[in-house]
Amino acid sequence: MTRKELIRIIKERKSFLCVGLDTDLRKIPSHLLDSSDEPIFAFNKAIIDATAPFCVAYKPNLAFYECFGLQGWAALEKTLAYLRQNYPSHFLIADAKRGDIGNTSKMYAHALLEQLDFDAITVAPYMGTDSVTPFLNCEGKWVILLALTSNAGSADFQLLQTEAGTCLFEEVLRKSKEWGNEDRLMYVVGATQGKMFERIRKVVPNSFLLVPGVGAQGGSLEEVCRYGMTSDCDLLVNASRSIIYADHTEAFAEKAMEEARCLQQQMATLLESI
Amino acid sequence: MTRKELIRIIKERKSFLCVGLDTDLRKIPSHLLDSSDEPIFAFNKAIIDATAPFCVAYKPNLAFYECFGLQGWAALEKTLAYLRQNYPSHFLIADAKRGDIGNTSKMYAHALLEQLDFDAITVAPYMGTDSVTPFLNCEGKWVILLALTSNAGSADFQLLQTEAGTCLFEEVLRKSKEWGNEDRLMYVVGATQGKMFERIRKVVPNSFLLVPGVGAQGGSLEEVCRYGMTSDCDLLVNASRSIIYADHTEAFAEKAMEEARCLQQQMATLLESI
Repeated sequence: MTRKELIRIIKERKSFLCVGLDTDLRKIPSHLLDSSDEPIFAFNKAIIDATAPFCVAYKPNLAFYECFGLQGWAALEKTLAYLRQNYPSHFLIADAKRGDIGNTSKMYAHALLEQLDFDAITVAPYMGTDSVTPFLNCEGKWVILLALTSNAGSADFQLLQTEAGTCLFEEVLRKSKEWGNEDRLMYVVGATQGKMFERIRKVVPNSFLLVPGVGAQGGSLEEVCRYGMTSDCDLLVNASRSIIYADHTEAFAEKAMEEARCLQQQMATLLESI
Repeated sequence: MTRKELIRIIKERKSFLCVGLDTDLRKIPSHLLDSSDEPIFAFNKAIIDATAPFCVAYKPNLAFYECFGLQGWAALEKTLAYLRQNYPSHFLIADAKRGDIGNTSKMYAHALLEQLDFDAITVAPYMGTDSVTPFLNCEGKWVILLALTSNAGSADFQLLQTEAGTCLFEEVLRKSKEWGNEDRLMYVVGATQGKMFERIRKVVPNSFLLVPGVGAQGGSLEEVCRYGMTSDCDLLVNASRSIIYADHTEAFAEKAMEEARCLQQQMATLLESI
């Protein structure tokens, strides 16, 4: 999916919501465990069908699938195939946070962007240029680079002051512009980072930011938009637990839809201002 | 496996070799593709049986298994089970380079250290404390933190000068000492980094270093030992491609054994000096 297509879909659907499919077999409603041979896929399918009109992207975090071994990996493959067949205009993100030496990153790129046909993958920048560029070599696919994450530990290294008076995350942003531009590169910036969005926008004024941390992690959607939104939007705001685990009864999909619609309505209002 | 046990095995076997099981279906001998329903496992089993007397550790890089989807994941599970059953005194490393927010790192820890029963996992430090500690919460298991990697891109961020006059990799080493000690924490330092081992040893004098980059990547075993070895050894030197792809005929396992033995003999000499 191109940048232009993604922006068009955001404007049409009046939403920049990404739903995180962090599906934990131990947390899904018990009736699914009894009634389905493939409870992870059954849960994802129900969540997807309920939330698709209100979001523009889905983001399975691979940890939640690896955790269940073969059963988890099979559920991930089936979820991707279902999304591709039924919702071709949704942007699909592999939340993998990979990054390795060149020939190994190339294997991850093949596995996730080519075999599973994700549109984008989250990548950790610590190993530098040759750990990131193999992902950019997959034509038409996106890299979403970790910049300033939503967790407390983000302060440990990402906010480290460099000799040049910048923070490490600013060096990551600056360096990454040698690898690609806003047509292929996005950045992870946590909703919990508040005013830091201003500093991010100074380095990457027109790049999409993937923003986790609204919902269960406590970030503010209004604050993210005040400091991070551009005239093209250039935001994908993710919510996982607050949507997919909004309810644990047979009404879980309906409650997930309500949560997604509620966020979409707030987003529609925020989009009117641009 | 404890630090004490690992040091004992290194001294007994006169080897600190780790064999990287970066098994690529497209590179394994063609006769295995014809004769086995499980060519990835068949290749691993032959390599393991041939090299086990000469090494102390095995390190599958997960990218190579994810790349083949369900077939790859099944081969990884089977390889681990085979190692655990037949070679209980080998140290097993998941080369995964994971690292995510706390609840997600916990899922990776469960998948790799508990379900698959690896002894250790490589972890990327960019997301800080709460992305690393869930792995350390698995009793008896090790974290191997990326410090100064073997690839060219390591210069981009790892060697960035901080305000304090140090490099980022030194800040990673320093900070990590708040999370654990040499009994549970190791560090990845590329063999291509030469004299930088002296700077590493100033911060972590008695920690194990996992050293990739000897062999196909061109690092020198002698140089690594001159600057990195301690009186307890405290090194695990990895070779992957130079061993497992030493030959592409039916004699591949025999040639892999020769390569492993050749490295082990050099290591035996180097160990005599401590």
